[in-house]
Amino acid sequence: MSSTATAPRDTPYLELDLDTLTRNLARAAAAAESSGLMLRPHAKTHKTPKMGRLQLEHGAVGLTVATVSEAEIFADAGFDDLFIAYPVWPSAGRAQRIRGLAERVRLRLGVDSVEAAQRLGAAVANDTVEVLVEVDSGHHRSGVSPADAGDVAVAAARAGLAVVGVFTFPGHAYAPDARESAARDEASAITQAAQSLQRHRIDPAVRSGASTPSRTATDGTVLTEARPGVYAVNDAQQVELGSCGFADVALTARATIVSRRGRDVILDAGSKTLGADRAAWATGYGRVLGLPDARLTALSEHHATVSIPDTETIPELGDELRVVPNHVCNTINLHDELVVVRDGAAIETWAVAARGANT
Amino acid sequence: MSSTATAPRDTPYLELDLDTLTRNLARAAAAAESSGLMLRPHAKTHKTPKMGRLQLEHGAVGLTVATVSEAEIFADAGFDDLFIAYPVWPSAGRAQRIRGLAERVRLRLGVDSVEAAQRLGAAVANDTVEVLVEVDSGHHRSGVSPADAGDVAVAAARAGLAVVGVFTFPGHAYAPDARESAARDEASAITQAAQSLQRHRIDPAVRSGASTPSRTATDGTVLTEARPGVYAVNDAQQVELGSCGFADVALTARATIVSRRGRDVILDAGSKTLGADRAAWATGYGRVLGLPDARLTALSEHHATVSIPDTETIPELGDELRVVPNHVCNTINLHDELVVVRDGAAIETWAVAARGANT
Repeated sequence: MSSTATAPRDTPYLELDLDTLTRNLARAAAAAESSGLMLRPHAKTHKTPKMGRLQLEHGAVGLTVATVSEAEIFADAGFDDLFIAYPVWPSAGRAQRIRGLAERVRLRLGVDSVEAAQRLGAAVANDTVEVLVEVDSGHHRSGVSPADAGDVAVAAARAGLAVVGVFTFPGHAYAPDARESAARDEASAITQAAQSLQRHRIDPAVRSGASTPSRTATDGTVLTEARPGVYAVNDAQQVELGSCGFADVALTARATIVSRRGRDVILDAGSKTLGADRAAWATGYGRVLGLPDARLTALSEHHATVSIPDTETIPELGDELRVVPNHVCNTINLHDELVVVRDGAAIETWAVAARGANT
Repeated sequence: MSSTATAPRDTPYLELDLDTLTRNLARAAAAAESSGLMLRPHAKTHKTPKMGRLQLEHGAVGLTVATVSEAEIFADAGFDDLFIAYPVWPSAGRAQRIRGLAERVRLRLGVDSVEAAQRLGAAVANDTVEVLVEVDSGHHRSGVSPADAGDVAVAAARAGLAVVGVFTFPGHAYAPDARESAARDEASAITQAAQSLQRHRIDPAVRSGASTPSRTATDGTVLTEARPGVYAVNDAQQVELGSCGFADVALTARATIVSRRGRDVILDAGSKTLGADRAAWATGYGRVLGLPDARLTALSEHHATVSIPDTETIPELGDELRVVPNHVCNTINLHDELVVVRDGAAIETWAVAARGANT
């Protein structure tokens, strides 16, 4: 317990409700177990070793990260089983860092091209790096088409790497009513990719996928591992996609009303506190706890305009509101620490140790 | 000069071209002088004391900041004339910090309500805090209507504060073809607000405004001070608004191509490197130096999809590109340091000392 956390703080800052977080983790652990999926949560959401530790205590087999530097920071914090779910390009500097990591932890990496597989093999062969081939299941970001997964796997195996399976991110689940179809696309792509590896006599033992919005539809007969990230704390996108309710939101930005004009109030939390994310289908730049009909209708770096409808009472200058950010992964990455609260009282601060770890 | 800066770096990271920066600063200084405007650049763009120092060397009379914590960090770095151009709400903790700042530097603050003026006066009266009344000139964010500026000024004066003038941010200049009309709105609002103060026998000696897109149209016969921020380094928004050309962009994110699919290449710089800003009128999530027809058509946290048109050659896996972010203020706030380059070679790193200073 940190004494500084209990003093009044100047807004804006991030609050993490510990009981809500714990409930989210327990629920996901139970769901994964009943689906026969191993849980490897994505730590890019929180970048916070204390939260990663709680995830391991709630049944996670290891953590997923997005970058080599995130892996380094979680390795420094004592985590020993990490999957960099990204098509890592092994430049000279990065290859050296990967070798260093592989000496300390069980390390898995993504590859999505023959070129990257060959380069990675040349850089780290004879080490203990395991690779998974990334497959595009419909999000059309990185990843090879499922039928080509075998070619990349063969290149990786010939380059001396241990190919352990395939992975995908069904990010096209981030749209209204897309969860079921995205999960079906994922199961189909992973099935095809696994068959592509098997045709080359490579065992796709690990078949990894899932996203927070689609995770309840993830096919546990096809996949072996789920990598949700946002589920731990949730955000306004998940509320608006119907993946959770406001009661499941564990992370909010506490902000003060600094200005008023008509039915608009201006908060001191803007894009440098919340992030500038706004999907095409989002109803605004975030939501407000206790004011479900209000919307963040404009956002600058240090101003959020909250439009209060007739159905709700306009709060006063100086009042503090709790904003639910649209996309919590980008929100947390703007902050050095999270104020952990229980029953509304601050009890600790947790360091966002991997903030800004992009390399 | 830092020796680490000259070693090859793993992408993504931010590069600052020193000669382009210096040329931008010199040009703005000359323009301000010929318009009869004092220049008080907004340091929220760069949060970097080394850049603020260069701005003072190029004629700036002091710096503008957005938050009390930015002011504290620049005061720590030796800056002694700071304007917090924001309607600061003086909560107990913040009021104490404002008193501390006023003992160290010449401090100006914004107010935009009678309530804030009274509270601020009660908290810091008998100190040397100067205030400016914020006026809404058409951006409709914070700020009172020009005719009400006098009422706020009177409340501030009665509360024991030194009222020195009025300020506005013509942010509605951030739209195609809006620069001239936004600058006219600004001149009109500042004129009305100044008259409103004068009717109450308060001298509006400081009349502060301007934005990067509208700055060439700022009326130097009405305003006394300009507070542009982005002009120092520019960004894709300014290129697309016609405020500058690619040759004037001093800050870029260096990123590596990690994946390819058809005419799309995927960079390792996403919203955690660039920021997620995308105005309604923007053509994408950023631009690429040397590929003027390419667009960032999709952005995740660690992926940017660059769509290469037929008119341009598709770069190779592993190639490094230089991305021009849409909104550089949010980009820089994601990074701890800037790699300063001259003639393409890294010569120094500058600390983004005020990164994350939101309170």
